[in-house]
Amino acid sequence: MSVTISYEELEALLETIFLRHGTRAGVAELLAANCATCERDGALSHGIFRMRGYVDSLATGWVDGSAVPVIEDAAPSFCRVDARNGFAQPALAMARELAMQKARTTGVAVLAIRNSHHLSALWPDVEPFAQDGLIALSVVNSFACTVPFDGTSAVFGTNPIAFAAPVEDADPIVFDLATSAMANGDVQIAARAGKALPPHSGVDSEGQPTIDARAVLDGGALLTFGGYKGSSISMMVELLGAALTGGHFSFEFDWSGHKGAQTPHTGQLILLIDPSYAAGNPFGLRAQTLIATMQAAGVSRLPGQRRAETRALAAQNGIPINAEDLAGLKALAIA
Amino acid sequence: MSVTISYEELEALLETIFLRHGTRAGVAELLAANCATCERDGALSHGIFRMRGYVDSLATGWVDGSAVPVIEDAAPSFCRVDARNGFAQPALAMARELAMQKARTTGVAVLAIRNSHHLSALWPDVEPFAQDGLIALSVVNSFACTVPFDGTSAVFGTNPIAFAAPVEDADPIVFDLATSAMANGDVQIAARAGKALPPHSGVDSEGQPTIDARAVLDGGALLTFGGYKGSSISMMVELLGAALTGGHFSFEFDWSGHKGAQTPHTGQLILLIDPSYAAGNPFGLRAQTLIATMQAAGVSRLPGQRRAETRALAAQNGIPINAEDLAGLKALAIA
Repeated sequence: MSVTISYEELEALLETIFLRHGTRAGVAELLAANCATCERDGALSHGIFRMRGYVDSLATGWVDGSAVPVIEDAAPSFCRVDARNGFAQPALAMARELAMQKARTTGVAVLAIRNSHHLSALWPDVEPFAQDGLIALSVVNSFACTVPFDGTSAVFGTNPIAFAAPVEDADPIVFDLATSAMANGDVQIAARAGKALPPHSGVDSEGQPTIDARAVLDGGALLTFGGYKGSSISMMVELLGAALTGGHFSFEFDWSGHKGAQTPHTGQLILLIDPSYAAGNPFGLRAQTLIATMQAAGVSRLPGQRRAETRALAAQNGIPINAEDLAGLKALAIA
Repeated sequence: MSVTISYEELEALLETIFLRHGTRAGVAELLAANCATCERDGALSHGIFRMRGYVDSLATGWVDGSAVPVIEDAAPSFCRVDARNGFAQPALAMARELAMQKARTTGVAVLAIRNSHHLSALWPDVEPFAQDGLIALSVVNSFACTVPFDGTSAVFGTNPIAFAAPVEDADPIVFDLATSAMANGDVQIAARAGKALPPHSGVDSEGQPTIDARAVLDGGALLTFGGYKGSSISMMVELLGAALTGGHFSFEFDWSGHKGAQTPHTGQLILLIDPSYAAGNPFGLRAQTLIATMQAAGVSRLPGQRRAETRALAAQNGIPINAEDLAGLKALAIA
């Protein structure tokens, strides 16, 4: 049975869960807002579906929910954050103003987060920068579950890349895509629902192509999207998200002693560009022209448009939620 | 019949052609080195195959071979170049030191080139930065020949993205990939050879899927690689390569009055990051670890490795070239 819940109620419920399971107040607030936003916007593989993973990871002591990040101001356009084995989102929140100030002063800035855990979507990290007038690009590596092109075993994570840019008189244009053929959350959702994966998504534990989601999760692996091209981009995500931040590669951390842990212990890179330094017509106007041209060429759904539509619906009608899932969340809040 | 030619001979011959057909000395030298490098490294779709396109574009007056670029130092980490309707490579060469100095001083730098023409591969632009210890990312848009995902007509160019990063005790890791399903040069080569394209590469003038290279070139269009994901990345290339540089989008310039012109009049963005500001072990060592792990996972050919091997062979044996093609080049040099 589906019921509805307001964004505020859902956020408050999730915050209670995070507080109950070992995160400090500021972290609980951030992660609850992040997770409720994903659920509200229809990004279900990173919504309440993830709460079990957060709670289990906290319970095993694999991630430190009370960590206080430490900012390192490395250069005029380069800042780093040591997340101290905590979540990436509080590290980003703490360094956000500094990174934006650097980008606005110098034209571009790197924010390199390491020693961090990221279990959510990437678009909630980049979209707010575009709302504030900046172009933002972010990558995060995860855990070894994706086979490089021409390889036989998993090295890369799902390694998403997210991008957001301001558009005049419109919402920012935002995309967030896994460089694996599918996102892990979507494979888990397919496995739960007993649904087949699209072809060319993954291999089983023998390295043979499969459309069985359980076979991919049970000792198998994903393939990269777009063959060797997606594989090259995934490799770039490892280099930027881990080598350049000082974080772990997707294949480097050992969580076998923390059974149930689901948060990859890696790094995240965020790049901010201030388009006000660009020559010619204002960037937002130019982005508007590009989008209008794409629409005139028949594109009916822009990147991020489905999320914006789902968000607007939720503002009117509340967020639809399965009654059983809601009961599960309420139980977690007092567990 | 195949003969061989040394790199130096080929470069000198190409330089003569460029000089003969309206480029100033500095431009001729740069473009000859660029084109000879592509041919030497086996990047045949951007080697001597392109000389006709350069010469025809110059002949029509569409591109100014004698243009002198103008640098604009916009901010501590942001420089721009107005290529003055000339080629992009001389603009990059002129601003190279300034951009590197910015990246080394502040951690990261944007080099935004506009009013420029780019008919070559992108990897020759980024590889030298990695040889000098920087991470480089570049995008360039081209001419409307690629249909956005979910669209019905061409908006994007082939819109390549190139990346280079230093690796300890090894050549840089470099990739350069079109975000269209194929590069235009490869479609032209397939058309000349009468070879079929791989499926999902393009559509004909009616918008119907085709594997006929001529149908794609003759009023048809390419598709993006990797479905909606490649399309999102191609859109990002338009935003960064054109909107952020002040250059034309791929659909904005009108070269119909310059029959034979082949050089897209757009923009190019280059982003440089100095990895010495990264936390943890030196970036080059970390990149070395990633590559070793990819090789241990069965990857037999790394991005860029084929070019490096072809380059080494050419250093030993000279560059193989079709005798007829060589005669054609010699004719162009005195035409």
